[in-house]
Amino acid sequence: MKELLLVGIGAGDPDYITMQALKALRRADVIFLLDKGPAKHKLNALRREICTRYLDGHTPRFAEGLQPERERDAADYRASVDELNRDKQAVFKQLIDEQMADGEVAAFMVWGDPSLYDSSIRIVEAIAAARGDLRFEVIPGITSLQALTARHRVPLNSIGRAVEITTGRLLAEGWPQGVDSVAVMLDAKDSYLRFVGQGLHIYWGAYVGTADEILIAGPLDEVAERIAATRAQARERNGWIMDSYLLRKAESADN
Amino acid sequence: MKELLLVGIGAGDPDYITMQALKALRRADVIFLLDKGPAKHKLNALRREICTRYLDGHTPRFAEGLQPERERDAADYRASVDELNRDKQAVFKQLIDEQMADGEVAAFMVWGDPSLYDSSIRIVEAIAAARGDLRFEVIPGITSLQALTARHRVPLNSIGRAVEITTGRLLAEGWPQGVDSVAVMLDAKDSYLRFVGQGLHIYWGAYVGTADEILIAGPLDEVAERIAATRAQARERNGWIMDSYLLRKAESADN
Repeated sequence: MKELLLVGIGAGDPDYITMQALKALRRADVIFLLDKGPAKHKLNALRREICTRYLDGHTPRFAEGLQPERERDAADYRASVDELNRDKQAVFKQLIDEQMADGEVAAFMVWGDPSLYDSSIRIVEAIAAARGDLRFEVIPGITSLQALTARHRVPLNSIGRAVEITTGRLLAEGWPQGVDSVAVMLDAKDSYLRFVGQGLHIYWGAYVGTADEILIAGPLDEVAERIAATRAQARERNGWIMDSYLLRKAESADN
Repeated sequence: MKELLLVGIGAGDPDYITMQALKALRRADVIFLLDKGPAKHKLNALRREICTRYLDGHTPRFAEGLQPERERDAADYRASVDELNRDKQAVFKQLIDEQMADGEVAAFMVWGDPSLYDSSIRIVEAIAAARGDLRFEVIPGITSLQALTARHRVPLNSIGRAVEITTGRLLAEGWPQGVDSVAVMLDAKDSYLRFVGQGLHIYWGAYVGTADEILIAGPLDEVAERIAATRAQARERNGWIMDSYLLRKAESADN
């Protein structure tokens, strides 16, 4: 048997790591790295920092999976995600086959929590279902939304109300029905801008929990342009951006 | 100045604690305890367990706040929450005034994450706004929903879709519009039962991450009665229950 641990490492501060995650990483013979794109260097540096700081001298080896860079057809989001996940599955399979021996434990250090807008669980489940020699476990981690609300010192929900967690792509289609609080991830296109003039409050953050952290909060009408400009500058300066935000109807903003 | 740390300790396993939370607790001179009701003993035992296990010999003192037990008018939920929070605010104020000296740091160990269905942030913000001598900080923690999805090894969202986090009370009013995944907390009345026959999949868990953990998953039509019976028995046996669940439209259950 081989064992794969999908370990949420939190999103930002290396200290978001849980004791459960550290215990899992201390069991690992090998750590798989799969990131690509402009944030890859920074994210892998964070992973190595966590290992150096907290594994008590245990030194798993690192194995890097190489994913093909492809032109994606942005028009068909779901097909493009499917294709991305097929590529990722092939890389995972290769790592499991070639980079770990029978009886070994491998860990995959997932940014944030493996349960939220991350494909690792689906991919590993599909691989495990197709073969008899792979066990896997999931370890939760602090998400970028939790880092965001903690740094803004604001609740995710207003009292007794629901919250929707959604993507920039979906938010661009309109305000979700029946909720007063909407937490948005993966927004490449400043979808919050279309809600100016509707009495909303926004809590926005980029690189939250890191040295590059930027936080802006206030009535959306007053801060939307500043967020858009700050966001564009930060992305330009760093070559990538990782941000999220919470929108709340103003009558609920004090709740 | 006095400093108050609202520290999320995770929901269940003491190992859900983050390094950030441990560093905060190691700074604390005093730890405030405010729970009441049947789970109080268990939750406070978990808090002390975390301190014993992970504070490296640092031993903050404990100060318990005593909240009045009141008959609540269940018919007016919001008024009853407001009343509860007024009581809680009075207890917090008393602890800050009487149980910590100027220059000291107090920590409040919040079950789960202070940002999700918890009143501490609102209460402490109100207290801090009314006086000039109190700083506070929020530290995120693993929520019961994250523990739930990790133990079921299932994503919270289906690919590219939104998730609604809601309460049993709200779910009883009907399926939230526009989402295929609904995560439910604080459901005292088995609200999932009203969705039998609608092709849903459920991932349910009680006392997740503890020795008493119970997990049930499957098509809602097949497991709903078993969950209801298991839940009633567990609550009877333990005197309290802490459970949550994820409902997903079946066509999305594999995503």
